[in-house]
Amino acid sequence: MSDLTPPAVILDKPQLADNIGAVARVMANFGLTDLRLVSPRDGWPQDRAWATASGADWVLEGVRVFDSVAEAIADLNTVFATTARPRETRQPVRTPREATRVLYDDTASGLKTGLLFGGERAGLETTDIALCAGIVTIPIDPKHHSLNLAQAVAINAYEWRTLILDAPPPRFREGEPPASNALLVGMYEHLEEELENGGFFYPPEKKRSMSQNLRVMLGRAAFTEQEVATMRGAIHALARGRGRVLAKLAAERAGKKD
Amino acid sequence: MSDLTPPAVILDKPQLADNIGAVARVMANFGLTDLRLVSPRDGWPQDRAWATASGADWVLEGVRVFDSVAEAIADLNTVFATTARPRETRQPVRTPREATRVLYDDTASGLKTGLLFGGERAGLETTDIALCAGIVTIPIDPKHHSLNLAQAVAINAYEWRTLILDAPPPRFREGEPPASNALLVGMYEHLEEELENGGFFYPPEKKRSMSQNLRVMLGRAAFTEQEVATMRGAIHALARGRGRVLAKLAAERAGKKD
Repeated sequence: MSDLTPPAVILDKPQLADNIGAVARVMANFGLTDLRLVSPRDGWPQDRAWATASGADWVLEGVRVFDSVAEAIADLNTVFATTARPRETRQPVRTPREATRVLYDDTASGLKTGLLFGGERAGLETTDIALCAGIVTIPIDPKHHSLNLAQAVAINAYEWRTLILDAPPPRFREGEPPASNALLVGMYEHLEEELENGGFFYPPEKKRSMSQNLRVMLGRAAFTEQEVATMRGAIHALARGRGRVLAKLAAERAGKKD
Repeated sequence: MSDLTPPAVILDKPQLADNIGAVARVMANFGLTDLRLVSPRDGWPQDRAWATASGADWVLEGVRVFDSVAEAIADLNTVFATTARPRETRQPVRTPREATRVLYDDTASGLKTGLLFGGERAGLETTDIALCAGIVTIPIDPKHHSLNLAQAVAINAYEWRTLILDAPPPRFREGEPPASNALLVGMYEHLEEELENGGFFYPPEKKRSMSQNLRVMLGRAAFTEQEVATMRGAIHALARGRGRVLAKLAAERAGKKD
């Protein structure tokens, strides 16, 4: 059995404390400990969670609360969004077993990993899925696809423990590891700010979906830390260049007037 | 995707209707439909189960209730008991993945299969485990081994669906299939009755554990229907032979007295 750090579990906007407790319980069943909550509906902590955790108190006591998915996964390198297969996606879709294998290999390669789950009703927002390295879809019967939150966590946690006990030789990542999510989000925001200045988001109501597409496209590249720095330099140069051109044009116009 | 009949799920003495509903829900999630209850504590049907089944009504409406595990699994050929690994057992212990593979192969070979789960607190009785073809143990972290009933069902049901979607070529059973549990139990009871008559169970308080050991030993042989008939003939002959010997002894004694 290996001493790899298991993936963090991130619950986005969980509604019921009972479910948070049930998630903690099943994480403990399979040796996971790092539970993070994004904007739990009824605040935190909540007694009901302890009641349903059935003794997995150390998981609940270690819970960290965040205001956004981006902040909750900032320190992680490889995060999968657990959700039904989107109708249209340009992100890789994996089974829990396939995803677990990637998490295992990445963890063995020194990366920090996580699994993101949506709230009971709303599920995950596309903008948050776009921050992830891919999508995990549990093979549910389409006839009855409403899977309980703790069950979804259970299946992924069970796959992790099964793989850990089996302890196959990890396939180490070659080359540089991908940057943390914090660095990626910083790059996206920088890019979006400059695109906004440049009038790229037109019509304005499309800004959200256009940003998302960019994040998904660029996310697939799995930039290293160095590559993020390169990209930011490029964005900066492009934006500055545009500033210079504008300044030049303004100067020319001013000259003509004279 | 195959059209194999999924395993039946048998819950022995379930306590909470909420859990029965949660089991039905997760069975529906993974395409299982045959739910059987043995002596549910609060009777059946119960409204709470429908509340937690989240729309998986067809599973609850098809529920059958039995008075004993033996009756609930009478028509099945291969049943695994889902339980923590017993300290001492002479029955094979499998992971959910290994057990699912056996259930898959047996189903493809025309057999009827099932998964037996114990109640929330008490778990399964050894006498009932002895009726099963083996034990399934979910790889739980020993640090926190209290697994919710619906989670235990979820993991096995998920393994079934994952295998079904993968649809590997089944390894058909060679030769005759094992007899149904009803035939086996009939044989055990016949044997035990005659052993009782023969004064085998001594001291009497050991009868239970001695019977159990016999069932486990003989169960491992996976007798066919024909073999069960052969065994019953042998038991009958042994008992009749003893009867004749006793009659002869009695006659001799009577002769001496004259």
